[in-house]
Amino acid sequence: MLRVAVALAWQKKRVGGMRMPSTAARAVHALKDENCPILISPSLVSLDLPDIWASNPTPHDFPSAHKCSNEQNAAIIDGKSMAEEIMSRIAFEVKRMKESIGKVPGLAVIMVGQRRDSQTYVRNKIKACGEAGIMSMMTELPDDCKEDEVLNALSRFNEDPSVHGILVQLPLPQHLDEAKILDVLSLEKDVDGFHPLNMGNLALRGREPLFIPCTPKGCIELLIRSGVEIMGKRAVVIGRSNIVGLPTSLLLQRHHATVSIIHAFTKNPEQITCEADIVITAAGVPNLVRGNWLKPGAIVIDVGTNPIEDPSCEHGYRLRGDVFYEEAVRVASLITPVPGGVGPMTIAMLLSNTLDSAKRAYDFT
Amino acid sequence: MLRVAVALAWQKKRVGGMRMPSTAARAVHALKDENCPILISPSLVSLDLPDIWASNPTPHDFPSAHKCSNEQNAAIIDGKSMAEEIMSRIAFEVKRMKESIGKVPGLAVIMVGQRRDSQTYVRNKIKACGEAGIMSMMTELPDDCKEDEVLNALSRFNEDPSVHGILVQLPLPQHLDEAKILDVLSLEKDVDGFHPLNMGNLALRGREPLFIPCTPKGCIELLIRSGVEIMGKRAVVIGRSNIVGLPTSLLLQRHHATVSIIHAFTKNPEQITCEADIVITAAGVPNLVRGNWLKPGAIVIDVGTNPIEDPSCEHGYRLRGDVFYEEAVRVASLITPVPGGVGPMTIAMLLSNTLDSAKRAYDFT
Repeated sequence: MLRVAVALAWQKKRVGGMRMPSTAARAVHALKDENCPILISPSLVSLDLPDIWASNPTPHDFPSAHKCSNEQNAAIIDGKSMAEEIMSRIAFEVKRMKESIGKVPGLAVIMVGQRRDSQTYVRNKIKACGEAGIMSMMTELPDDCKEDEVLNALSRFNEDPSVHGILVQLPLPQHLDEAKILDVLSLEKDVDGFHPLNMGNLALRGREPLFIPCTPKGCIELLIRSGVEIMGKRAVVIGRSNIVGLPTSLLLQRHHATVSIIHAFTKNPEQITCEADIVITAAGVPNLVRGNWLKPGAIVIDVGTNPIEDPSCEHGYRLRGDVFYEEAVRVASLITPVPGGVGPMTIAMLLSNTLDSAKRAYDFT
Repeated sequence: MLRVAVALAWQKKRVGGMRMPSTAARAVHALKDENCPILISPSLVSLDLPDIWASNPTPHDFPSAHKCSNEQNAAIIDGKSMAEEIMSRIAFEVKRMKESIGKVPGLAVIMVGQRRDSQTYVRNKIKACGEAGIMSMMTELPDDCKEDEVLNALSRFNEDPSVHGILVQLPLPQHLDEAKILDVLSLEKDVDGFHPLNMGNLALRGREPLFIPCTPKGCIELLIRSGVEIMGKRAVVIGRSNIVGLPTSLLLQRHHATVSIIHAFTKNPEQITCEADIVITAAGVPNLVRGNWLKPGAIVIDVGTNPIEDPSCEHGYRLRGDVFYEEAVRVASLITPVPGGVGPMTIAMLLSNTLDSAKRAYDFT
């Protein structure tokens, strides 16, 4: 298995007759520039291009489905080190904000119940806040709490000017109305980007959401930092959850990928996946995506973090992705590991969104 | 060419181990019931199903791409008569409302400029309102009007309690900020469903928009009334406009189709389209979709209404769809004509949304 840092290629692409640098190329350029923004991903509205269709293209023979082979070794996308690089830039910006205006960004977390995975996620987020100099606070509520208790906690954070981001750790216990709770969350503090207005603005060309959901944003940032040109690529998103699959498919579309969304009612998912240049999986099913689901040279982003019982591990379990990694790594050209791929980027994006929110609140540039 | 009314088949489908009638079957049942709602399409939230993934499916050989043949004759989906049936039910409901509470639904149209196609669309909508007993009013503004004039007209309609639906005929002239204008439109009167909050609620499972955009809603209603089961089907949407392509893809997903979205940056669109059971085109390019783009037996919904110069026609032009109809009709199993397919359904859906809005406003059931 080839464990190499992903090389960033300077690419040029002809768009609409105009010679312009690709997103990946601009990304590399930005990385070299010390004054560049923390994230390389461009604003969505800046990506908007008119659809100029080629009328009546010449019909041609269609190639048969790609044969999936087992001969290639993938380079590993090192999400951990990319996230660390972003985190250090965030920490620098937080320090600059504190020194300039005496303020720091604040993130509030509402955690209901005792889910082990949620507790781990929240702990990691709080820890990351501390490392970046972002103030964090948490309200923990019991599993059987009333909806009003959650709404009251939310209202307090909505009104607190030292809080710039609020996240309600999902999933909530069944008896709570998730939609109703998320609707109460102040749009300006919705750093998870789950509010339907944010989602609508993510979907609609010509518009820009206040916040892009963290995991999808992290996936795109991983791709761009790996030198992957998304425009025109066939992308398959496996899973259509409100928090990952759906916004990921919308975001890939804003980047001009040709997107197919696979879910549990899809027949022959492997057949569709095998045609994709980019596969992003968020199904929550360990080892769902086998090596023969992939086109040789595909780029694979694995959002799955599924605990698998393993008595030999410290906590009695280990994490597996949605992708059968040992098979996929022989077929793909680029792949994220689990853990150490998308996970750290999600947290970095949460902190980036919180920083952006604080900058907006204080009009700090 | 076989011109037949589409037969509605009573189908049963096994979902999650439970034997339940398919949407198409429920549709047929509803059509037989005099007390059934005007539209057959179910509420979106009622469609939500948990994604239960089959883990580690047995790998198998993938069939090669379907060979596109030219031997079949499609049945024609008669959008005009389906729309008439819906319109007569709307007219009945409007009459019932008037007799019960002395009120009728009201639709307001804001029309900027002199685009010939927009004028035709608006004229048809106003005419349909008259036929259904819905009150309509229109504000016409010149091509070079100021943004404030549009916003003022919009505010007046927002505040007018006799107006239950407002539509701003798109596209607007370039100098006007479409997003800003649509944001001012009252959510409760956004019968076009173009507000980002409506779009977000259309996208998100567990939520229901106040209004589903008219053309996508019409496409789904056409499919369901034609006895097409959408769940599990491969659907390709050609075009990703904010007003048709995007909401159509979101709506198909809510109906559990496996959706791929094709746009002008898609490579080999014909290859992807040729795998689809359902093709919905809204590219605005006449004859883009050739016969060999289609899988034999595919269901084709053509949203395109492209004027083609033709001196032999009364107005000097005739309408063509995005689909090369004469070729497609030999490959598809079901197809909408242009005109007489989606167009009449779009108007029926607009009136249906306006009626729903008035019912909500007056709490009339």
